[in-house]
Amino acid sequence: MQQTSERYRRGWEMLKTIDGEAGEHVVAALQDIAPDLARYIIEFGFGDVYSRGVLKLKEREIATVAALAALGNAQPQLKVHLHGALNVGCSREELVEVLIQMAVYAGFPAALNGIFALQAVLAERAAATPAG
Amino acid sequence: MQQTSERYRRGWEMLKTIDGEAGEHVVAALQDIAPDLARYIIEFGFGDVYSRGVLKLKEREIATVAALAALGNAQPQLKVHLHGALNVGCSREELVEVLIQMAVYAGFPAALNGIFALQAVLAERAAATPAG
Amino acid sequence: MQQTSERYRRGWEMLKTIDGEAGEHVVAALQDIAPDLARYIIEFGFGDVYSRGVLKLKEREIATVAALAALGNAQPQLKVHLHGALNVGCSREELVEVLIQMAVYAGFPAALNGIFALQAVLAERAAATPAG
Amino acid sequence: MQQTSERYRRGWEMLKTIDGEAGEHVVAALQDIAPDLARYIIEFGFGDVYSRGVLKLKEREIATVAALAALGNAQPQLKVHLHGALNVGCSREELVEVLIQMAVYAGFPAALNGIFALQAVLAERAAATPAG
Amino acid sequence: MQQTSERYRRGWEMLKTIDGEAGEHVVAALQDIAPDLARYIIEFGFGDVYSRGVLKLKEREIATVAALAALGNAQPQLKVHLHGALNVGCSREELVEVLIQMAVYAGFPAALNGIFALQAVLAERAAATPAG
Amino acid sequence: MQQTSERYRRGWEMLKTIDGEAGEHVVAALQDIAPDLARYIIEFGFGDVYSRGVLKLKEREIATVAALAALGNAQPQLKVHLHGALNVGCSREELVEVLIQMAVYAGFPAALNGIFALQAVLAERAAATPAG
Repeated sequence: MQQTSERYRRGWEMLKTIDGEAGEHVVAALQDIAPDLARYIIEFGFGDVYSRGVLKLKEREIATVAALAALGNAQPQLKVHLHGALNVGCSREELVEVLIQMAVYAGFPAALNGIFALQAVLAERAAATPAG
Repeated sequence: MQQTSERYRRGWEMLKTIDGEAGEHVVAALQDIAPDLARYIIEFGFGDVYSRGVLKLKEREIATVAALAALGNAQPQLKVHLHGALNVGCSREELVEVLIQMAVYAGFPAALNGIFALQAVLAERAAATPAG
Repeated sequence: MQQTSERYRRGWEMLKTIDGEAGEHVVAALQDIAPDLARYIIEFGFGDVYSRGVLKLKEREIATVAALAALGNAQPQLKVHLHGALNVGCSREELVEVLIQMAVYAGFPAALNGIFALQAVLAERAAATPAG
Repeated sequence: MQQTSERYRRGWEMLKTIDGEAGEHVVAALQDIAPDLARYIIEFGFGDVYSRGVLKLKEREIATVAALAALGNAQPQLKVHLHGALNVGCSREELVEVLIQMAVYAGFPAALNGIFALQAVLAERAAATPAG
Repeated sequence: MQQTSERYRRGWEMLKTIDGEAGEHVVAALQDIAPDLARYIIEFGFGDVYSRGVLKLKEREIATVAALAALGNAQPQLKVHLHGALNVGCSREELVEVLIQMAVYAGFPAALNGIFALQAVLAERAAATPAG
Repeated sequence: MQQTSERYRRGWEMLKTIDGEAGEHVVAALQDIAPDLARYIIEFGFGDVYSRGVLKLKEREIATVAALAALGNAQPQLKVHLHGALNVGCSREELVEVLIQMAVYAGFPAALNGIFALQAVLAERAAATPAG
C-alpha cells in the first residue's frame, strides 16, 4: 500500500519533527477534500526533499521562512514554518533577523507581515506552555 | 560627508566581503543615474542589515537566495547573491539544496530557474579562475 | 445610455451565468465607491472576454482558478470563481485536480490555500441547499 | 544615541505627517519583537526616502498605493498608505482612479481588493470623525 | 465597425499621446497573433481608463511605473511606460524617485531593475535624438 | 534502482507525451548540476500529478499555461508548456484565448508577454517543420 511506503514513513517522521502538531493539523484537514495532496506533502515535501541532508534542518527552515515571507501570499504556511524553525533549533532572535533581511529583498511590508506572524506564533507557544 | 559615514564604511566592507566584484559593478553602474540608491544599498542593506550579527553571513545568504529564487523576478540579483553565498562559505551542493527546497514552496519553475542561474554563476567562476 | 449598451447586457447575462449571486454581490458592493469598476468588470471582463467563445466556459474557469490560485493574493476572487467553475460544469473532483496541479507550478502553499478555499466554497453551497 | 539621530527625527516627523496614528501603531506594535525594524522604517523609509523631495508627497503616496495594490500581498500596509494618501492631499476620487488604473496592469482582483480596502479606510475615518 | 468606435478612436489618440512609437509597435506586433488583445488595450486600457480624468496623465504614469517596477515581471511594459511617463511630463529625476520609493515597498531588486530599465530608456531616447 | 521505478517510468512517458523535446532538453540540462531535481520533475510532476486522470491533459495544460502566464516570472517554463499544450491538442486559437483571459485576472502585461511567448513558440514549430 502506497501510504506506508518508505517515502511516506520517512516523510511522516520528518513532518512530525519539523512542523509538529501544526503539520499534523494540515494533513488532517485535507483528508475529506484532497487526501492525495497531503500524501504528496508527506512523500515529496518531507520524504524526498527535507530528508536530503547536506543542509541542516535549521538551514532548510531559514530558506523556507525567507521564501514564504518574501512571497507574502501564504501566511498560514509561514506560521507553520515559523513553528517549524523554532522546533528545529532556530531562536526567536534568529527568526527576527531572517525577517528583517527580507526588508532589503522584498520590501518592508514583507518584513512587517513576517514579524507579526512571528509575534502570533510566539504567543501561541506561550499560551500552550503550562506555567512552571 | 555622508558617504564616508561609519554606516557607509561598514557597509562598503561588508558588500565587498559578500558580493565581491559583482556588487562593486552594481554600485558603479548606478553612479550616473541614481547614486543615492547605491548609497542606500551600502548604508542600509550592508551597513545596517548585513552587519547585525546573530545570523551567520552564510545563513543570511541562504535566506536571500531562497527569497530571490522564490520571487523569480530578480534574476540579476539572484546571480549576485549566488556568488555572495559561495563567497561566504556555502558550497555548490548546499546551494543546490536551497534551490531544490524552493520547488516545494514556490514551484518547480522557481527551482529550475534558480538552478540554471547557479549553473551560470559556477561557469563564470570557472572561467575567471586561471588554470593551475 | 452606456450601462445598457449591448456589451453591458451581454456581460451582465454572462456574469450571472458564471458567478451567480457571488458576482452580483461584488457588483452591488461597488456601487457606492467605484461603480465604473463594476461596469468595466461587466463590459470588459464578461461582455468582451468571457463572451469570446473558442474556449468552453468550463475551460475559461479552469484557467481562471489556476491563475488565481497560483497568484495567491486574491482569495475572495478565487472563491467567486470556484463557485463559477462549479456553476458552469466543473466537478468538485476536477477542481481538486486543477489545484493539485498548482503544487507543481506555484508550490504547495498555493495548492493548499486553493484547496481550503474550495472546501469553504463547498461548505457554503451545502449550507445554501435545502435538505431534501 | 542612534534613535535620536537627525535621520530618526526627520523620519519620525515625516511618518507622523503621512501615516498619522496608523503609522504610530505599527511602530508601537514592533517594540517588543523587532524594535530595530521600526527604527529602519523611520530612518530609512521616512528619514531617507520620503524626505528626498523632487516628488510631492502626494505623488509618493500615489506610487506607494499603486505598488501595494498591484502586489496584493500586503493589505495592512495598503490600508495604512490609503490613510497616508488621504492625509497628504489625495482625494477619495483620486484614489479610486489609482486603483482602477491597477485593473489594467495587475488585473481586476488587484483593483477590487484595493477598492474594498479604500472603502474600509473611508469607513474608519467616518467613524473617527465626531458628527458636527 | 467596432474598431472605429468612439472608444477605439479616443483610446488610439491617448495611446499615441502617452506611449508614442513604443505603444504603436506593441499594437503592430499583435496583429498576426491576437489583434483583439490590441483592440482591448486601446479600447479598455486607453479609451476607458486613461481617459477618465480626475488624475493627471503624469500621475497615472507614476502609478503605472510604480506598479510595474514593484511586480518586476513585466520589464518590456515597464520600459514602454517609462517612455510614456517622460512623454507626459515626468522628468528623469522624478522617475528616479518613483523607483527609489519602490526599494521601501518592494525591495532593492525591484528598485534596481527599475533604475536599469530607466537607464536603457534614456539611452534609447538619446540615440533617437539627432544632435543639434 | 530508483530511477527505473514505476513512478519514474510513468513520468518519463508522460513528459515525452506532453513536453516532447523541450522537456527532454530540460532534463538533460540538469544532469551535471541537479539530477535529482530532474528526477523529481519526472517522478512527482509527471509520474504523480500529470498521471492522475480526472482532467484531460488538455485541461491540465490550460491550467498550467494560465498559471505561468499570470505569475509572469517563468518565461522558459511558459514556453515549454505552450509547446506542451499544442502537443496534447490545444489549438493556437485556444491558447490565444487562455492568454487573453489572463488580461482580466493578472493584467495586460501578463497577457501580452504570454502572447509574445506563444508567437515565439509558433515560430519555433514552423521553423522545425520541413516544407511539404
